[in-house]
Amino acid sequence: MAILRVSGSRDLPPGEISMTDTSITDAHNEDADSIPADHDGNVAEVILDDEHPMEAHTEVHTRAASPALIGEGYVAGIDLGGTKILAAIFAPNGTIVSRSKVLTGSVGGLDVIDRMAAAVREAAGVAGLSLSQITAVGTGVPGPVNPDTGVVHVTPNIPGWELMPLRDELSSRLGIPVAVDNDVRVAVIAEHGAGAGQGARNMVAVWPGTGVGGGIIINGKIYTGADSYAGEIGHITVKVGGAPCGCGGRGHLEAYCSRTAIVKRLHKLVRSGHKTRLTRIAGKNILKAKSSDIAEAASLGDPLVLAVLERTARYLAVGIASVSNLLNPELVVLGGGVVEALGAPYVDLITAFVREQPFAATTGPLRIVQSALGDDAGVTGAAIIARQIHNRHNSEEAA
Amino acid sequence: MAILRVSGSRDLPPGEISMTDTSITDAHNEDADSIPADHDGNVAEVILDDEHPMEAHTEVHTRAASPALIGEGYVAGIDLGGTKILAAIFAPNGTIVSRSKVLTGSVGGLDVIDRMAAAVREAAGVAGLSLSQITAVGTGVPGPVNPDTGVVHVTPNIPGWELMPLRDELSSRLGIPVAVDNDVRVAVIAEHGAGAGQGARNMVAVWPGTGVGGGIIINGKIYTGADSYAGEIGHITVKVGGAPCGCGGRGHLEAYCSRTAIVKRLHKLVRSGHKTRLTRIAGKNILKAKSSDIAEAASLGDPLVLAVLERTARYLAVGIASVSNLLNPELVVLGGGVVEALGAPYVDLITAFVREQPFAATTGPLRIVQSALGDDAGVTGAAIIARQIHNRHNSEEAA
Repeated sequence: MAILRVSGSRDLPPGEISMTDTSITDAHNEDADSIPADHDGNVAEVILDDEHPMEAHTEVHTRAASPALIGEGYVAGIDLGGTKILAAIFAPNGTIVSRSKVLTGSVGGLDVIDRMAAAVREAAGVAGLSLSQITAVGTGVPGPVNPDTGVVHVTPNIPGWELMPLRDELSSRLGIPVAVDNDVRVAVIAEHGAGAGQGARNMVAVWPGTGVGGGIIINGKIYTGADSYAGEIGHITVKVGGAPCGCGGRGHLEAYCSRTAIVKRLHKLVRSGHKTRLTRIAGKNILKAKSSDIAEAASLGDPLVLAVLERTARYLAVGIASVSNLLNPELVVLGGGVVEALGAPYVDLITAFVREQPFAATTGPLRIVQSALGDDAGVTGAAIIARQIHNRHNSEEAA
Repeated sequence: MAILRVSGSRDLPPGEISMTDTSITDAHNEDADSIPADHDGNVAEVILDDEHPMEAHTEVHTRAASPALIGEGYVAGIDLGGTKILAAIFAPNGTIVSRSKVLTGSVGGLDVIDRMAAAVREAAGVAGLSLSQITAVGTGVPGPVNPDTGVVHVTPNIPGWELMPLRDELSSRLGIPVAVDNDVRVAVIAEHGAGAGQGARNMVAVWPGTGVGGGIIINGKIYTGADSYAGEIGHITVKVGGAPCGCGGRGHLEAYCSRTAIVKRLHKLVRSGHKTRLTRIAGKNILKAKSSDIAEAASLGDPLVLAVLERTARYLAVGIASVSNLLNPELVVLGGGVVEALGAPYVDLITAFVREQPFAATTGPLRIVQSALGDDAGVTGAAIIARQIHNRHNSEEAA
């Protein structure tokens, strides 16, 4: 296998991506696409759809817990995706004691909230807990949400969720306080509270996946802005009049650096006669290639894929430098599907390009690291926001 | 005379700048280039250079004071520029009781600090105060500075100030605690504490002048970042591979929206055969045109100047939208020499272009206003940081 590699030179010419005989997969993303299997054999995978009975899958989590996860009683964290719902129960000492997985299903609406509640009940059951022992539940949502009201504006991948009062609906089903936030922001909270960003005062997260999400930690806390939209790094303009973005804009970072942008670029190059192994890996329709397909082609040294990834890394570096000059953070954490699949060599490539960007005063000392929690970021961040509402509730009662 | 004006349409085509018979000068920048004259006849203008004796100029300030300026005792605020040093004494009730002006001179080094001290002494004298009645002094500096150490990294327009320990040097001359910060950041603190941004929790300031400076207020406080470089909005990239920027980068906002960029663009267009009245107003060398010259040409309806200003406003709007999508502030305050000279019509034009930018969720509700303090921003912000160190000192003594 081959890897993306960058030389130490600040004058790396376009196209210069070296290859060595090493896997591009690193420890962080071994489990990027599945729940890690049965460390303790205690499997609890819940399948709730019209056709399948329930199964369960659980494991004891061994990662050392951070202070952000420690608190009174048990909390549940839910990672809501368009395909599956993951739930995990966190003990007072901050470790995961059980997990469950439920399919999101295609029906949408309140049915999804029933399934979220079922996932929490199942995970609690596997851990031998009653719901009354769960003090709070947190969940990330793939779309814009107001954390203060718990109302989801819309979710592109779940039907019937326009202005869905998720917090109140889920809370009434479980009889437990619920906290909700956007999924990327929840992942950023997780990386800051229990992952690669622990201890950072000022941090920016960049999450290239289907789009390019982001999040900002200011003075040790998630920053949400005036109307809870802060962190949309994917929608900063890096090229006036440039490539069209899904949001209707042009030249946005997302239009160059998302998985969607990467496969569009490859599709265009293939249509103009370039060859790539990706067609054999992902099938004729390159537009459907997953991040893992792109990573596989890169690991095989596919020149077209490597060239597109280098271009993408250069644009990401420009975006990171812009944010760095504006916010002068100490740390950038890179995550999301694309970064999870490509791993450390891709992070190194982006870092090298950031170092070439002015100002050296902000881009030079900036630490750039890969997210540490992988697929656990969702449930972990959800558990942290659950801890936060529980603590807030307690301190209000004490006051 | 004519003004820049923008229609209410969101589909304003390029080149659409209307003109009416109204001055482009508004109330905020009447005194943009001079200290307002003798409201009370008590003039105290101090000229300290090798050739001129001292004169003095002072006035009683009538603007209502904000809470940020109110405190125990008198404080002095200094606005240090490459040409002149302005000092003002603020009473406990937050009003300005005297001012003085000293030339910065061309010698540089410690001589400039002697002159800053002289300006404070003179302003105190005019107000009938002894130095012992001044509890703290604040000053803005035209260059990067570390507010924690009070050391100036470098000032492009003052010789011999590399790693100058300004805080300690000025404090030892006056026997008064001194606070220092970057001049744009001081102006932002002023606008937030006592100007157009009063009460804003999350605000971004954009300051197009010789360069494009900026500043960020987060949760009601100035945000400085990991190494005090935060706010360099001029150095976000809006066009990958675009126009060269003074910092060595390419396609930065400053390379399109500073006065320097505006006159460079006009210079290029004139060399390629375009005509403009600016050559008659500012002289053959358009590169030396001041913001007021550009404003005069715009007010006369000069098509070339209007077209370049519209282009500049479009780029500024893209930069503001990027920052808006990233930080979701409630308010953007526009200031700096270019905005001061062009006034409300230019702010309206920029605002109209921002409204055309995605996301509507962040760019739609965003308030965009002109700075309110004009030439007073420097001394006012300096007085606010002086109040802050005095308050901090007092609370430490009480603890």
